[in-house]
Amino acid sequence: MAAWRKIYMEGSRPGIRVPFREVSVGDSPGHEGPVPNPPVLLYDTSGPGSDPATGLPALRRDWVIGRGDVSERPGRPASVRDDGRAAVRRAGGDARPSGAPRQVLSAATATPVTQLHYARKGEVTPEMEFVAIREGVDPEVVREEVAAGRAIIPANVNHPESEPMVIGRRFLVKVNANIGNSAVTSSIDEEVDKLNWAIRFGADTVMDLSTGPDIHTTREWIIRNSPVPIGTVPIYQALEKVDGRPEELTWELYRDTCIEQAEQGVDYFTVHAGVLAAYVPMTAGRVTGIVSRGGSIMAAWCLAHSQENFLTTHFEELCEILAAYDVAFSLGDGLRPGSIADANDEAQLAELRTLGQLAEVAWKHDVQVMIEGPGHVPLHKIPENVELERRWCHDAPFYTLGPLTTDIAPGYDHITSAIGAAVIGMHGTAMLCYVTPKEHLGLPDREDVKAGMIAYRIAAHAADLAKGHPGAQVRDDALSRARFEFRWEDQFELSLDPETARSYHDSTLPAEPAKTAHFCSMCGPKFCSMRITQDIRERYAEPVKVDISPRASAGTGAPT
Amino acid sequence: MAAWRKIYMEGSRPGIRVPFREVSVGDSPGHEGPVPNPPVLLYDTSGPGSDPATGLPALRRDWVIGRGDVSERPGRPASVRDDGRAAVRRAGGDARPSGAPRQVLSAATATPVTQLHYARKGEVTPEMEFVAIREGVDPEVVREEVAAGRAIIPANVNHPESEPMVIGRRFLVKVNANIGNSAVTSSIDEEVDKLNWAIRFGADTVMDLSTGPDIHTTREWIIRNSPVPIGTVPIYQALEKVDGRPEELTWELYRDTCIEQAEQGVDYFTVHAGVLAAYVPMTAGRVTGIVSRGGSIMAAWCLAHSQENFLTTHFEELCEILAAYDVAFSLGDGLRPGSIADANDEAQLAELRTLGQLAEVAWKHDVQVMIEGPGHVPLHKIPENVELERRWCHDAPFYTLGPLTTDIAPGYDHITSAIGAAVIGMHGTAMLCYVTPKEHLGLPDREDVKAGMIAYRIAAHAADLAKGHPGAQVRDDALSRARFEFRWEDQFELSLDPETARSYHDSTLPAEPAKTAHFCSMCGPKFCSMRITQDIRERYAEPVKVDISPRASAGTGAPT
Repeated sequence: MAAWRKIYMEGSRPGIRVPFREVSVGDSPGHEGPVPNPPVLLYDTSGPGSDPATGLPALRRDWVIGRGDVSERPGRPASVRDDGRAAVRRAGGDARPSGAPRQVLSAATATPVTQLHYARKGEVTPEMEFVAIREGVDPEVVREEVAAGRAIIPANVNHPESEPMVIGRRFLVKVNANIGNSAVTSSIDEEVDKLNWAIRFGADTVMDLSTGPDIHTTREWIIRNSPVPIGTVPIYQALEKVDGRPEELTWELYRDTCIEQAEQGVDYFTVHAGVLAAYVPMTAGRVTGIVSRGGSIMAAWCLAHSQENFLTTHFEELCEILAAYDVAFSLGDGLRPGSIADANDEAQLAELRTLGQLAEVAWKHDVQVMIEGPGHVPLHKIPENVELERRWCHDAPFYTLGPLTTDIAPGYDHITSAIGAAVIGMHGTAMLCYVTPKEHLGLPDREDVKAGMIAYRIAAHAADLAKGHPGAQVRDDALSRARFEFRWEDQFELSLDPETARSYHDSTLPAEPAKTAHFCSMCGPKFCSMRITQDIRERYAEPVKVDISPRASAGTGAPT
Repeated sequence: MAAWRKIYMEGSRPGIRVPFREVSVGDSPGHEGPVPNPPVLLYDTSGPGSDPATGLPALRRDWVIGRGDVSERPGRPASVRDDGRAAVRRAGGDARPSGAPRQVLSAATATPVTQLHYARKGEVTPEMEFVAIREGVDPEVVREEVAAGRAIIPANVNHPESEPMVIGRRFLVKVNANIGNSAVTSSIDEEVDKLNWAIRFGADTVMDLSTGPDIHTTREWIIRNSPVPIGTVPIYQALEKVDGRPEELTWELYRDTCIEQAEQGVDYFTVHAGVLAAYVPMTAGRVTGIVSRGGSIMAAWCLAHSQENFLTTHFEELCEILAAYDVAFSLGDGLRPGSIADANDEAQLAELRTLGQLAEVAWKHDVQVMIEGPGHVPLHKIPENVELERRWCHDAPFYTLGPLTTDIAPGYDHITSAIGAAVIGMHGTAMLCYVTPKEHLGLPDREDVKAGMIAYRIAAHAADLAKGHPGAQVRDDALSRARFEFRWEDQFELSLDPETARSYHDSTLPAEPAKTAHFCSMCGPKFCSMRITQDIRERYAEPVKVDISPRASAGTGAPT
């Protein structure tokens, strides 16, 4: 009977305790009695479990302080747009995370405090060691990949609650889950619930894409309860501060928003600095124009002011801010295609080339960078996306939304895009941004978050198998062996969603004995193909004697 | 406001009326007022709609009779295993299709009556013209592909109710849905309901994989109500006739079962003639042995008798039977891998090579052939499957189950396999056999049939787009334009599942005005990226003036 428990692997330094889900499985039948199977270790993103009222423990705080490169000061007060409404909207009314300003950390000097900085100095940080244990690789491999810009460890010094993880093509393919409320729907409690639902089903990072009121407070609750890195799109909050009027945005307002979020502990920012004014007209002939919210905000600003995108012109100043907190860049694809017709077009590729140049600027400041990718792309145009990203962006980790491989299935875009995600992951994309069934139709609820996560864990794992990631196939093999040996409970427990697998099985054969029966509802008790194979296996101990007829003996034995 | 209706395109001969679903869509906004959009024609598998008590009209009967190559005689009575229980089990008790033996057709002489026979003679049959109109190609292209063995038109002379369709790599990728009851569950009514559910969501063919009692009667109900070709695995019924004991199977009993099914109108048979006795031991070391039911039946028979597979040794006699009714072969992959670990192994590939040799034998008899493929295959091993199939099986249409790209997601194998199906479809697979969420866990109910169909229509369409099938992108473009212009009803009606898309939209913005509103719940009314793009489009009529700063003017405009 399968069972699982959470275990921790210790690192070389105090406090490095890397979580895994250990699944114990039953014995296999053998010629001389039962043969025990080793337990299966699964990567675990679910965190230590948190009480929302107190938040998670500050796992990384000692490591951060221990580097001696940060100083502490009181954080900024919440934005005036985020005063009391959030607390009121929470069912419980507990407003601890949104209470008095926390003490925040930032670089004590002009020296960057980033993982990239230490990697380049040749230093293996506790964060690097943590992810090395998590991935089953040598810590030096992690350091090298981070130092080369081929991998990032999103790890804001103000988000000590997070368990380090790495994003890069040499590591397991990661999945991001988007959550966040909008002007129209949802509450803070719902968002924290979605966070927990997402990490339970394997989200490696979570982006809080909230719009509308309470952005600051919603984010505070999310970060304090999140064991995974949190990403945001700061321009969304900046836009709220100017009441949704893109033309009123300024660099100063944006900068302050970024600092506010960096102080809270956001681990990576999507920044649409590649939406150059010159590229905007390239979208006019598209079937779906600009579909990225951030991209269209910046395009609107460029048009209103007849000036270059202020994110681009102030990019170096932005780098200095991110370097002081170790916030990573996720260079946004504001001109990504929103339909099959617009895939790999001039606007998209022009922006991608610019993102590569911006990545080089960020690296100059020791800031970690990943590159965002589309969108809607038919299968045959996917490889080119990865090839150009690698070439133009110098192997910075690619982070793609899907892509959706057809436009015709609203309501099922977790599937249209899981297809594209698996394929782009196989070609080397480091992190996949999930898409839920509600894409294009509405905001996801918790069931949509689950559906999106499962589809994307499938895509990521299919990509890991295709890339030959060491150890990826262990889970498939263990599950398949359990299936073949009718160890139903083991099969369920090793699956991505044990509850669903169990309930589907029980809906045709509900009785408890059926879970140990050596047959299933597909064939019934009388005949079973798996049982016949077991007979073959037993028989095979003796040489198989076959009366081969003349026509069958000719090589591969086809009749002639 | 979107609306749809069924229309028929007339062919050059009487009775050739090819169904399409015509979706009328709203106008686009233009500079000088609304611009009308053409209606969108969609391939339609749903049939004319049938009253189960009478069955469908015999659309193809005159064409079949008109060729003057068949004679009529009374069909065999139903098997003794299929007497009255079926009628009793039907809720209504109406047993018309299982009543007195029908008159059946078969070749009047030794000359084959197959589509392949006529194609080789240079004759464009009404069936070929029908599918040419359906696919939007020249009838001569259809004839050539069929004559070359690169495409098949499954069209048993005793299934005149079916609307012709073609399976081949130069045509739209097709989807098969498996239905069928088992010894453990389901009734005939449920199976006919699943048939209707499957074709409503786009099944191009349906396989009746029933086991247990009432196989004959269940199949009779299915065929008489099916506007799509029906496939079966005759060995399943043969096994029922010997009470589930594989060793008691004989060629004679199998042959009679095939004739019985050919008389009923089954359009293609899965035949596991590639499971040679010599290949059976190759499966002993596998993680999941033999997972194909038919494959394991034949392996058990070979082991019990120490003789070559009787399907292989009697293959030429089988060809003669199939040629007399125009039943197509679906040469079964009885040794397909049942897990990632077993993909592309010796047993699988040995069988595939044999299937190619059997295809040549079938072609000698003018019998149409397709080749079945796996199963469980990781993404990077998919292309080899298609390459070897093309080389060894001489471009006979490939018909694959999935493949599943990972084993770790029972309950979601419609997704694990839709990923593999899209990729193998892109590489040239002609028909995809769907997998439902219940795969490995139980028999699919109607909701599972729907979930499997939608996932596979997505996969097939993604493959059509990737192959550049002419016209495939029309639907994506029309839907994306509707999306961009906030024509919500058009977007729903053009989608694979309008009902679900509509309900997801309504769950966040339920009010009727929201469906014409120029915003959606993702961004809310205040800010909308699509609206900004519309502004850009309008602005673009004038030259875009941008004050380009020195750093932004350098080529692609990155800061330096």
